[in-house]
Amino acid sequence: MHEFVLVDLIGYLAGSLTTVAFLPQVVKTWKSHSARDLSLAMLAIFTTGVLCWLLYGIALGRWPIIIPNIVTLLLTSAILFFKLKESLQL
Amino acid sequence: MHEFVLVDLIGYLAGSLTTVAFLPQVVKTWKSHSARDLSLAMLAIFTTGVLCWLLYGIALGRWPIIIPNIVTLLLTSAILFFKLKESLQL
Repeated sequence: MHEFVLVDLIGYLAGSLTTVAFLPQVVKTWKSHSARDLSLAMLAIFTTGVLCWLLYGIALGRWPIIIPNIVTLLLTSAILFFKLKESLQL
Repeated sequence: MHEFVLVDLIGYLAGSLTTVAFLPQVVKTWKSHSARDLSLAMLAIFTTGVLCWLLYGIALGRWPIIIPNIVTLLLTSAILFFKLKESLQL
């Protein structure tokens, strides 16, 4: 029982960090109006990957994988949107 | 049996995409010598989070979580290194 609680805690910490991480990037890109140094390929591939992680978490029934990947998907989609908008304007 | 194979395949696809994604970013940052638009907070928090995912994967004994997070850790550490180098020079 305790072992599972600790494992889930590590999972939630991992999910929180790799999710929260994209918030300062969204804020920075929003404020600077510049996504030039961000790789479009990185953003497109990563966002697709996060969608797959979400499906994997649903299949395993593991909330520490499901919940953060929903939020990460929203944040990385926002950054991808900024980048696409910038790329199409150039 | 088949169900587990499919679930693991989705996991491997997810891990491959969110890992491979950082390769074009490493190449872009390496070539442009500019990491200005990348958030230092994003890189630092994300890299720490990937380390936690690695520990979570080890605890669950799930290779689709372990393997890609080792590679992701190396790639994001490289981008974080470029960013820190640039930040300290400014």
